[in-house]
Amino acid sequence: MGNTWGKIFRVTTWGESHGPAIGAVLDGVPAQLPLCADDIQHDLDRRCAVGKYATQRHETDRVSILSGIYAGLTLGTPIMLLIPNSDAHSEDYHGWEKFYRPGHGDYTWEQKYGIRDPRGGGRCSARETVGRVAAGAVARKLLRLKAGVEILAWAEQIGRIKADVNRSAVSIELVEDSPWRCPDKAAEMAIRDELEKAASSGDSLGGTVGLVLRNVPAGWGEPICDKLNAMLAQALLSIPAVRGVEFGEGFAAASMRGSDHNDAFCQRDGAVRTLTNHCGGILGGISNGGEIYLRVAFKPTPTIAQTQRTVTREGEEVEFAFKGRHDVCFVPRAVPVVEAMAALVLADCYLLHRACCC
Amino acid sequence: MGNTWGKIFRVTTWGESHGPAIGAVLDGVPAQLPLCADDIQHDLDRRCAVGKYATQRHETDRVSILSGIYAGLTLGTPIMLLIPNSDAHSEDYHGWEKFYRPGHGDYTWEQKYGIRDPRGGGRCSARETVGRVAAGAVARKLLRLKAGVEILAWAEQIGRIKADVNRSAVSIELVEDSPWRCPDKAAEMAIRDELEKAASSGDSLGGTVGLVLRNVPAGWGEPICDKLNAMLAQALLSIPAVRGVEFGEGFAAASMRGSDHNDAFCQRDGAVRTLTNHCGGILGGISNGGEIYLRVAFKPTPTIAQTQRTVTREGEEVEFAFKGRHDVCFVPRAVPVVEAMAALVLADCYLLHRACCC
Amino acid sequence: MGNTWGKIFRVTTWGESHGPAIGAVLDGVPAQLPLCADDIQHDLDRRCAVGKYATQRHETDRVSILSGIYAGLTLGTPIMLLIPNSDAHSEDYHGWEKFYRPGHGDYTWEQKYGIRDPRGGGRCSARETVGRVAAGAVARKLLRLKAGVEILAWAEQIGRIKADVNRSAVSIELVEDSPWRCPDKAAEMAIRDELEKAASSGDSLGGTVGLVLRNVPAGWGEPICDKLNAMLAQALLSIPAVRGVEFGEGFAAASMRGSDHNDAFCQRDGAVRTLTNHCGGILGGISNGGEIYLRVAFKPTPTIAQTQRTVTREGEEVEFAFKGRHDVCFVPRAVPVVEAMAALVLADCYLLHRACCC
Amino acid sequence: MGNTWGKIFRVTTWGESHGPAIGAVLDGVPAQLPLCADDIQHDLDRRCAVGKYATQRHETDRVSILSGIYAGLTLGTPIMLLIPNSDAHSEDYHGWEKFYRPGHGDYTWEQKYGIRDPRGGGRCSARETVGRVAAGAVARKLLRLKAGVEILAWAEQIGRIKADVNRSAVSIELVEDSPWRCPDKAAEMAIRDELEKAASSGDSLGGTVGLVLRNVPAGWGEPICDKLNAMLAQALLSIPAVRGVEFGEGFAAASMRGSDHNDAFCQRDGAVRTLTNHCGGILGGISNGGEIYLRVAFKPTPTIAQTQRTVTREGEEVEFAFKGRHDVCFVPRAVPVVEAMAALVLADCYLLHRACCC
Repeated sequence: MGNTWGKIFRVTTWGESHGPAIGAVLDGVPAQLPLCADDIQHDLDRRCAVGKYATQRHETDRVSILSGIYAGLTLGTPIMLLIPNSDAHSEDYHGWEKFYRPGHGDYTWEQKYGIRDPRGGGRCSARETVGRVAAGAVARKLLRLKAGVEILAWAEQIGRIKADVNRSAVSIELVEDSPWRCPDKAAEMAIRDELEKAASSGDSLGGTVGLVLRNVPAGWGEPICDKLNAMLAQALLSIPAVRGVEFGEGFAAASMRGSDHNDAFCQRDGAVRTLTNHCGGILGGISNGGEIYLRVAFKPTPTIAQTQRTVTREGEEVEFAFKGRHDVCFVPRAVPVVEAMAALVLADCYLLHRACCC
Repeated sequence: MGNTWGKIFRVTTWGESHGPAIGAVLDGVPAQLPLCADDIQHDLDRRCAVGKYATQRHETDRVSILSGIYAGLTLGTPIMLLIPNSDAHSEDYHGWEKFYRPGHGDYTWEQKYGIRDPRGGGRCSARETVGRVAAGAVARKLLRLKAGVEILAWAEQIGRIKADVNRSAVSIELVEDSPWRCPDKAAEMAIRDELEKAASSGDSLGGTVGLVLRNVPAGWGEPICDKLNAMLAQALLSIPAVRGVEFGEGFAAASMRGSDHNDAFCQRDGAVRTLTNHCGGILGGISNGGEIYLRVAFKPTPTIAQTQRTVTREGEEVEFAFKGRHDVCFVPRAVPVVEAMAALVLADCYLLHRACCC
Repeated sequence: MGNTWGKIFRVTTWGESHGPAIGAVLDGVPAQLPLCADDIQHDLDRRCAVGKYATQRHETDRVSILSGIYAGLTLGTPIMLLIPNSDAHSEDYHGWEKFYRPGHGDYTWEQKYGIRDPRGGGRCSARETVGRVAAGAVARKLLRLKAGVEILAWAEQIGRIKADVNRSAVSIELVEDSPWRCPDKAAEMAIRDELEKAASSGDSLGGTVGLVLRNVPAGWGEPICDKLNAMLAQALLSIPAVRGVEFGEGFAAASMRGSDHNDAFCQRDGAVRTLTNHCGGILGGISNGGEIYLRVAFKPTPTIAQTQRTVTREGEEVEFAFKGRHDVCFVPRAVPVVEAMAALVLADCYLLHRACCC
Repeated sequence: MGNTWGKIFRVTTWGESHGPAIGAVLDGVPAQLPLCADDIQHDLDRRCAVGKYATQRHETDRVSILSGIYAGLTLGTPIMLLIPNSDAHSEDYHGWEKFYRPGHGDYTWEQKYGIRDPRGGGRCSARETVGRVAAGAVARKLLRLKAGVEILAWAEQIGRIKADVNRSAVSIELVEDSPWRCPDKAAEMAIRDELEKAASSGDSLGGTVGLVLRNVPAGWGEPICDKLNAMLAQALLSIPAVRGVEFGEGFAAASMRGSDHNDAFCQRDGAVRTLTNHCGGILGGISNGGEIYLRVAFKPTPTIAQTQRTVTREGEEVEFAFKGRHDVCFVPRAVPVVEAMAALVLADCYLLHRACCC
């Protein structure tokens, strides 16, 4: 249970880290949308390992579209996206079925299901996000073509280094220009240092991802349960290692006064706008036509090279240290995942709004 | 669309702030659960206005159970909970249909639906949470009787005053003993001051709510979409005025190293436990049997007595000031709402787990 | 579980036969639809007992709209419809909790839930259809105003008497003109006889209901699971006492040849039409723009005055005979229920189609 | 939209007739169920073409399990089943995109989606049932291992020839022993004749399929919307070419009296049973512990070799005749499809019941 997002634009991902393949099936994608594998490949490539601080698994993920397309257009039928799992070094995980890795889902998944796939964490691996990114690329194209929506994320904090990013000016070019998807040139040296120190000590880092959604029309979101921020929160908290999400001023709003936080309405160019944007583009759970922005917190990668204490399945307390490939900090690679989840939510909101509120 | 929580334990709330009544219908509540109105009334009373800094609307909400009960037991059929709207001073809102209140959903709801109920904000009012609290009381009873789960929230920050609360020692008695549901005696004076200053200047405050879930067995949560933290996040972000949520160390985890954040496993009294609890009781989206804790950020009440700028439906820029009843800070009253939403999520997780994973 | 129809136009009914009230909550009704209690009352009146062969319970069901409406228009928020249960003679059922009535759900509901409400069958009573009819009236109005759809049912067979009805010419006036909602004057005497004989022997009759859906545009229905005929079938089979449904030629199609059953396409007035209509207006699970028709089979009323054998909850074999009020044949009263269920399905199809296929 | 069955045991099928592959994703399958490709292959083989009156397309469908399995056991994660489309003669359909085949979904699907895949009917082809049968095999295994449920269907009528089948005595051996899956030796000659005549005249036949479900415990089904019969009806009506379904006495019940149709309860071997089984094992939408039986009506194969009238996409009236491979009567091949759909519904009912009613 629980592998499907959305009510109309429905995405079910499937696959384990070291199984034969991984992917997603999309139901509810409107017909006649131009779509080909290249539309998806681009985001998959962005998700793959980059830089010396990321895992050295060479994930050259190639997507195949197995259904739902004819003559370059969507048919309105389910779209099956399949990505073979190549370069899976299961031997790196040999012996891992015997104990529970701290910070991972080994113990809880085994408690729930009574069984787990120990090869690379099975479905609890971050590799599972491949299917999300593939599906998100379809959602993103739908949103761009139908509504002009732009979805952009970036690394805002890596370890203890917080970047200074102007969310209204940042662009995909600025983000991708950075080796860590952090569009703050001034922070580059500090981040390199932070990564270097963590790597050299066999440790790992967390961080945050910022996200901005542009050109979302006023009116999206389905109160009161499926408010736009609520749906985004669920989608983002389902990403491995995410520990929190905040919209607009977020936790800082708790310390503000109403007279400071309220965004005054004004009339600009024949449309209602706000003079400030403390609310982050969402009011009462519905988009207000302004820029939507939020921030996602990631814990540090649980896989580290240092020796850790844990217990075996038989209840024996043991020590172990991981020898395989892993990310020092997965925040840079999480950027396209955050974008993908936002795209899935927005695509569903768009179709729901179309159903009920024309 | 979008007024239902849950997949099996399904709760649909209904009602506008100044309509004849408000309530919730619950489907999927297991049969043979002892239930009477008093079980629900207690939480409704807690939600009602308390203290001089809360709205002076005398919400003496009385619930009726219209279906789903026979001889004091649930029947397994839908349970309809109805609470009449009394003491609704619609005249306080006279003229409000003409313009959009800053910080409220007036503008966005009207953009979405092309119509809105201006009386007290209609369904976008915090009064809508009455139905949630009533439904949450049923979920809470189910969880207590079937699994011994305890759900406890408190005000952790009011305005700029952050309380010091030992989450593992706090009790319902300590929380309810405080006029602001803040179980930190040392912070009482500072909070009173903060509230006094905001009130006297016609302003409002935000804050945060802490939540702890005790005795949740290992294994609850449905990865990868319906992870326990993801479902909690959606439910909590659907509460009016919530701007963020964080689990365990939350945003602070972004600055930690893996070697610090990972909770080592140990064996205690024949069970697997963790030496620390940075993860907040959830790993890989599934409860680990430890204490679950999280924090919710609320923006300041948007209704303030100060003059504000806005626009009318006709696009004219105007100024206005609210003269009616309102909360200076709704964090204390939000405490039982946070508990209710957590209860709804946990009840659903409990039943989903029972379905798939015995 | 299982008390909700629809994916977007979502209807949850609630209530037991002898509880304080019964009703439905509708979520997903588009905003700005003109709606008042009178729109619903008309269909409720049609569902109520009529004629000497129907139950003598005087069901003067009066509906109240408790939410979702402002200034005569729907708000896009949940619409709560409540109908008090009056004239409930629970004493008629005294002692019935002790044994299982043949043909009723007493035994199965008790097996499932471990408890049942014996007063009038609780939620397993046909009285539960009150909420459906109320909700159906809203769906019907939406369909009429937005798409001009007409929904019309009639009694096609009562006991062994089969009427001769021209489905393309029949009108609501012809149906309501008949004391049994059977628009075949020639069959009137035979039906009266059939009813008289069953009544005088303390027995009951079954029958069939015919249904025609006019002006449904081509394109409604969501293959392959939620085909239009599949969704109609589920909705109709959920009506108490329904034993079968057939579309177009139905079971007779099993004996036809492809060359006879296929409806040739032709071009008429600039549109694609079929020369015949054996398929009943649905092809590949999607409406083809022609008249949709189907037939529903009802078993005879299980409540009869004759002595019957059964067992008690303690497993003792006993005999009993019912002395209270009941319908000799509920087919005439089922006519508006069949219409209501069709309306719920079509309203959902309409909104789903709007979401995905503009 | 609309390609998923079930609430907990969720099956989404995907794929077009002449795309690269076809299959299903299953979510909600309990963990630790022994499962391998052979479990599925058996039913796929049964679905494939048999006999000279079936299509000569050599569908040697080989299934691969791409996820959800480890060490021969289900993991509780999504199970992806993939069957490559081989032997697809798309050239048989050359030119077919230009007009609408009578009796097929060509016209309606194009009206709905504005586009269609003309190769073999795309997703509107009966080939789509491959994914259902594969998924059904998993459901069937779950039901057999967990509850001992047996699911058995057979051809009960082929063309105008109605078989005489003792539903309580029929076995899989008797069914598979017949070239047409019709376990009535006496009807064999007549059926052969009927098929021969239809084939020689380039025509096709319909028929009916009977289904019996054995050992279903009392208590399955979720009233009032998701009654067991209602869910079965939806699943069965979603099979291509199905025109009707009837439970127990079905349409014949319409002509019966209550005193004849009611099944008296009795006490046998310490359990409540019924003396007769007119109701078909379901009362009030819930299984009563007895044999469940139903009948499904199929229209004749719409693909025939005779010349037919239709119109082109440009609105020109034309004649055409099909020259490719097709079934004279698909009832024999529909038998495992009917079983599969029943299995999907029962598996979901089983898990739903486990969630709510322990």
